[in-house]
Amino acid sequence: MTEVCTLSYCYLCLKSGCRYVSKAAPKTQVECDYDGPAMKTQVPGPRSQELTKQLGEIQNVGAVNFFCNYNESRGNYLVDVDGNRMLDLYTQISSIPLGYNHPALIKLMAHPDNLSTIVNRPALGILPPGNFPEKLMESLLSVAPSGMTRVQTMACGSCSNENAYKAMFIWYRNKERGHNTPSAEDLSSCMVNQGPGCPDLSILSFMGGFHGRTLGCLATTHSKAIHKVDVPSLDWPIAPFPKLKYPLEEFARENAQEEARCLEEAEDQIVKWRHKGKPVAGIVIEPIQAEGGDNHASPEFFKSLRNIARKHGCAFHVDEVQTGGGCTGKFWAHEHWGMDDPGDIVSFSKKLLTGGFYHKNELQPYRIFNTWMGDPSKNLFLTEVLNVIRTENLLEEVTRSGKALLNGLYELQTQYPGILSRARGQGTFCAIDVCDDATRTSIILKARNKGVVLGGCGDRSIRFRPALVFKEYHVHLFLNIFNDVLAQHK
Amino acid sequence: MTEVCTLSYCYLCLKSGCRYVSKAAPKTQVECDYDGPAMKTQVPGPRSQELTKQLGEIQNVGAVNFFCNYNESRGNYLVDVDGNRMLDLYTQISSIPLGYNHPALIKLMAHPDNLSTIVNRPALGILPPGNFPEKLMESLLSVAPSGMTRVQTMACGSCSNENAYKAMFIWYRNKERGHNTPSAEDLSSCMVNQGPGCPDLSILSFMGGFHGRTLGCLATTHSKAIHKVDVPSLDWPIAPFPKLKYPLEEFARENAQEEARCLEEAEDQIVKWRHKGKPVAGIVIEPIQAEGGDNHASPEFFKSLRNIARKHGCAFHVDEVQTGGGCTGKFWAHEHWGMDDPGDIVSFSKKLLTGGFYHKNELQPYRIFNTWMGDPSKNLFLTEVLNVIRTENLLEEVTRSGKALLNGLYELQTQYPGILSRARGQGTFCAIDVCDDATRTSIILKARNKGVVLGGCGDRSIRFRPALVFKEYHVHLFLNIFNDVLAQHK
Repeated sequence: MTEVCTLSYCYLCLKSGCRYVSKAAPKTQVECDYDGPAMKTQVPGPRSQELTKQLGEIQNVGAVNFFCNYNESRGNYLVDVDGNRMLDLYTQISSIPLGYNHPALIKLMAHPDNLSTIVNRPALGILPPGNFPEKLMESLLSVAPSGMTRVQTMACGSCSNENAYKAMFIWYRNKERGHNTPSAEDLSSCMVNQGPGCPDLSILSFMGGFHGRTLGCLATTHSKAIHKVDVPSLDWPIAPFPKLKYPLEEFARENAQEEARCLEEAEDQIVKWRHKGKPVAGIVIEPIQAEGGDNHASPEFFKSLRNIARKHGCAFHVDEVQTGGGCTGKFWAHEHWGMDDPGDIVSFSKKLLTGGFYHKNELQPYRIFNTWMGDPSKNLFLTEVLNVIRTENLLEEVTRSGKALLNGLYELQTQYPGILSRARGQGTFCAIDVCDDATRTSIILKARNKGVVLGGCGDRSIRFRPALVFKEYHVHLFLNIFNDVLAQHK
Repeated sequence: MTEVCTLSYCYLCLKSGCRYVSKAAPKTQVECDYDGPAMKTQVPGPRSQELTKQLGEIQNVGAVNFFCNYNESRGNYLVDVDGNRMLDLYTQISSIPLGYNHPALIKLMAHPDNLSTIVNRPALGILPPGNFPEKLMESLLSVAPSGMTRVQTMACGSCSNENAYKAMFIWYRNKERGHNTPSAEDLSSCMVNQGPGCPDLSILSFMGGFHGRTLGCLATTHSKAIHKVDVPSLDWPIAPFPKLKYPLEEFARENAQEEARCLEEAEDQIVKWRHKGKPVAGIVIEPIQAEGGDNHASPEFFKSLRNIARKHGCAFHVDEVQTGGGCTGKFWAHEHWGMDDPGDIVSFSKKLLTGGFYHKNELQPYRIFNTWMGDPSKNLFLTEVLNVIRTENLLEEVTRSGKALLNGLYELQTQYPGILSRARGQGTFCAIDVCDDATRTSIILKARNKGVVLGGCGDRSIRFRPALVFKEYHVHLFLNIFNDVLAQHK
């Protein structure tokens, strides 16, 4: 069991140069975690309800779960404003890499050299700080996907994908022209949104995919109707994503057939849209469809799709906004494909703390620009996150915890076949289906009142997105509570 | 003349509770500024050039001016990595409200309570921090535009406008339906990007306008072809923005005619697009077209346009991303119109440190959501920025400095009629035209080598975007250097 420390204590001892090291930890590992959930009220409690009412006067609170005390949250535990302490398997929609208030990040804040990076947000595209190349090397480039040496930061996931699409369009037009210089007609027609300057190019996406909710991204997002309805869109092609049976290894033959069907359809769409006069400049896909319901596909599927992209001259964009950052047991989910040349573009955000995208040399994103182009203070934190991932061997931990989690889910679905099915996962990036949406909601709310934060995805899945510091100990803690909840539903 | 302090000194004295107060300052004003430019090399100097080469291996550096030492930058002075200290009239494309390393912001960083806000970035839409409503009240709502009590934060300017457009589309569809619930057909058709779920609605924008560079925003941006070329767009209407003569008061009659022409054209476009089956859900406009060349229009123009929007049932979106935050002498540029009901949506970013948009109650942005929805650490800084604006009467200072600046520009254009023309401005948000683009570039580079950072906009304008702490003293410092540069060009 881990000792508990308060944030101010952490901060103070870090400032004075000492390190708070858990006595239980064998290595140089810095720990700062509570020893389990502790519930004082139902969630949302009275304070959260009061604050929801207050915030409701200012903005839409339809999606607010409860209000948090981030000061008191620590490691895998999220503390709310009513003093409830919950084991967090959702981590702010999968965006907290090392849990809450990791001492390494607090320490970074205490260093006076870092103050000016946080206080003065520069326009990175024109006036980068002197340490920007070095920080990019230490952070994003130290985990660059195979074949990619270039990276562009952005402020969020949607901006990352929007700008990645633009890079693919510009690359495609340069290829069509045979050079990089737009014609006078290109330049004049684009000013009034018309071709040839604004070309009728398209991006191929997949049913069930999620790539963000700004207009360009939204045209490639097909996970939930409520994300898309009432917003104008673009007539771009959409291919089916394989609907596989789990566990994958038990249904290898059927799954391969399903994947072949989807690949054929994807290629058909590319041909069809070319004939329509709206050629596919790029294909965008998630290694695991996350918002859409944790839909997996095999490495062979992605290899074949990559070849289809090559064959038809489309760029291949791997969207790792949710899968990137170590949660699958490898830093990038596409590493599981075992390819030297996994894509032309890999976009990221969430656990990487900054948005952005890697790209191959050929896809020089000239003319990709905005005021902030990301935020170097986030790179600073990312550098430290990567250090911790390395020194604490967190990818191994994720693999170990992930196995325990998936095995536990297999056991539970055997035990509760009327409620649970289709357990699946890679690393701790796991999910399980619930018999129906109402039961799912009820399970998630009951789990929360027992001190476990979960999230849903797709029509009736629960997705598990713990931080990288989620250990086997936490897995068993979670499985016990989850079992209690399920027993009540039986 | 102001005393100089180092950042670490500032930080140390703030931590220990004392305040570094300039002896020259009459009030409680905290100052931290250098006493003038100091140049050691040409800009970019050797170190900047070396870093540009390094960064060029990682990303496109076509727009990089030079590399900065943000640690040593202070107040109105930007210091580069070669030790050059420059008076900054561009402030990271108008996004640094109080100059560099303002002591109030440094102080905020030293407070342990703020650590967790910076270290743990929450998913604001589902798990906001307990102090979020309070911080919104203290910051954004304390400067809410007339008639607007609701605000949604976003990560950057483009996301702010993208989501504001979505809010207008959803509002318009709700109005068309007579209720807020999409039909089954809406929901099924939108999943494949088709109507009626993805409706053929449009946004009316203006030639010369700039609203961001993601796909939706880019369809309303018409400032430079190079921003738009090679990116697919939407067939949305575009009206002419008035091309006025300056000084405005000298050409009142001609300018009124030009504005009438543009208003008529705008209304025609709305009618035309409705007949085309692509009704205009909203009109988006900047109070001063910034990127497009600092184009002004009269309060009467905006009042009439607001009425046209009302008449045709279009939402009216005022984009204050560049004009907001005090640089025109009022907190919002639209306050100069003197209207109780200036718009339905006001979007912001840059000097506000966080992106986002205010909106009227009727435009409830249900279904506006993403993972981060902004960043509460930026609200924290914004609260402090607003405190400083109030306690130091910075809007008055801006008005005073702005007058001195514009008068100085008038004098210079009289003195150098072959080079300069069309001086114009509101507060310190000023601009002047140069005879041609090549001369403009040469002037900007020469000014930089003499220790003044300037930026361009439009085809041949120089825009002035100093921080709110730019005093009359700095105006005269600038005008002297600018005069020297112009004398060389004569």
